[in-house]
Amino acid sequence: MQTILRGPSTEVIISPETPIVMIGERINPTGRKAFSAELQNGDLSRIARDAQAQADAGALVLDVNVGAASVDEVALLPAAIQIVQDTVDLPICIDSANPAALEAGLKVVKGRALINSVNGETDKLAAVLPLAAEYDAALIALVMDDTGIPQTPGQRLEVAESILDAAQKHGIKPEDLLFDPLVMAVSADHKAGTVSIETARLIRATLGCNMTAGASNGSHGMPERELLNTVMLTLLGQVGVNAPICNPLKNGLAIHAINLLLGFDEWGMGYIQAYRALPKKD
Amino acid sequence: MQTILRGPSTEVIISPETPIVMIGERINPTGRKAFSAELQNGDLSRIARDAQAQADAGALVLDVNVGAASVDEVALLPAAIQIVQDTVDLPICIDSANPAALEAGLKVVKGRALINSVNGETDKLAAVLPLAAEYDAALIALVMDDTGIPQTPGQRLEVAESILDAAQKHGIKPEDLLFDPLVMAVSADHKAGTVSIETARLIRATLGCNMTAGASNGSHGMPERELLNTVMLTLLGQVGVNAPICNPLKNGLAIHAINLLLGFDEWGMGYIQAYRALPKKD
Repeated sequence: MQTILRGPSTEVIISPETPIVMIGERINPTGRKAFSAELQNGDLSRIARDAQAQADAGALVLDVNVGAASVDEVALLPAAIQIVQDTVDLPICIDSANPAALEAGLKVVKGRALINSVNGETDKLAAVLPLAAEYDAALIALVMDDTGIPQTPGQRLEVAESILDAAQKHGIKPEDLLFDPLVMAVSADHKAGTVSIETARLIRATLGCNMTAGASNGSHGMPERELLNTVMLTLLGQVGVNAPICNPLKNGLAIHAINLLLGFDEWGMGYIQAYRALPKKD
Repeated sequence: MQTILRGPSTEVIISPETPIVMIGERINPTGRKAFSAELQNGDLSRIARDAQAQADAGALVLDVNVGAASVDEVALLPAAIQIVQDTVDLPICIDSANPAALEAGLKVVKGRALINSVNGETDKLAAVLPLAAEYDAALIALVMDDTGIPQTPGQRLEVAESILDAAQKHGIKPEDLLFDPLVMAVSADHKAGTVSIETARLIRATLGCNMTAGASNGSHGMPERELLNTVMLTLLGQVGVNAPICNPLKNGLAIHAINLLLGFDEWGMGYIQAYRALPKKD
């Protein structure tokens, strides 16, 4: 099952038979005070730098989110997307909770985008599925619905199945959905990791779909988060999460290591090139 | 399926339902020139320090190998084992290619030891299986035989099955074998990781046995070996390699991270305590 994304002149394939694809998460004001303030002032100057740095670190898709408080996303999101695609030739993951902003982004994006995101909530399905269908975009689907985030992998699979049913009624195919099994913090629930992993395993086994995840959510509140994120990306990667959203500047080499040890990196050249491209420590 | 090892007054259980157990590999002259020279002079003074440091870093079993060139292992191995067990109350993994040295070690070890190792070679089976049976020891079994190391996971599983058959004729139970799926360097063969992982998956699914591995073999010849070792330990841990042999001083926190994200560490206390016990970086 191949999820195909396109940049201005590039194509990225996400599938069980090809290497894990890193979606760069940095163009997002969440937790970034300086970037939030800049966005509130209409200053988009950081975006080109962030785009280039993530591409250099191996991101193959870039998430673009400008959702800081009081920002007009409908105006700013398309502008940000254009800056990113003027800087790097990569597919865009258009990230907003506002359907009008998603549509504004879809109107300007070059190639085939990924929408971030839909979930099983009735309103969300009604607002976002028609956009994906109309603009021929792929779609991240979080396995939660009107009742919240299910506790068990079996319940999360049911939500995934109902989202898939709804999507197919809009002509959206299974290969155009990237399910997110939802990673919660192990500091709050020490079984949270296993629930995400088992959810991913069930989705891959039952629906065959490709998946994304915000693996770093698992390490909130813990020390040595980078190590935990490496382990979580590995555990999820092995059960089918083949397009994680992460910070390429921190997790890039880990993704290459996973691809190497999963047999996706002939001669290890991808890993070695990524290592050589790293800023030297000394 | 529970593999039970014992130290002088402690018990260690290796099973799919319990946390991954780290076997400390440091008491071994391979690649350690100073230690080799000391062993050749009959100087065992380093062993107590190495034992304590590995126990402090979370090792629950300690491998003991004194096989430097020209060393009389039959004399030295029992002495080394006694030093280790006088220092830390842990089960021993008695490591020698010399059956007479293994037997000398088994005669002095306190508790229930692990023998490192047998494999499917006719001579090896004939020499080592009777020792495990006579001294009631558990046994590491490498999935190779008189024809060498099989290339495919299916062939490696067949070797595992034939070792298990031979062991059972000596009254050795499946739970007393720790199979080693054999990790080879990905720098020499980029599919090496997947062969080991698939072998482990087959052994767990078919035989249900617990497993060990020298995960660090996979990273030979590559940069940033610690990252690769973390990823390999994670990939193997997820498919049933629950008693890896590794360097607790380098891989200890990674093992705790894997146990945390696999749901084996309530409140994350094992991980946090291991983090706090680390030498500070600044």
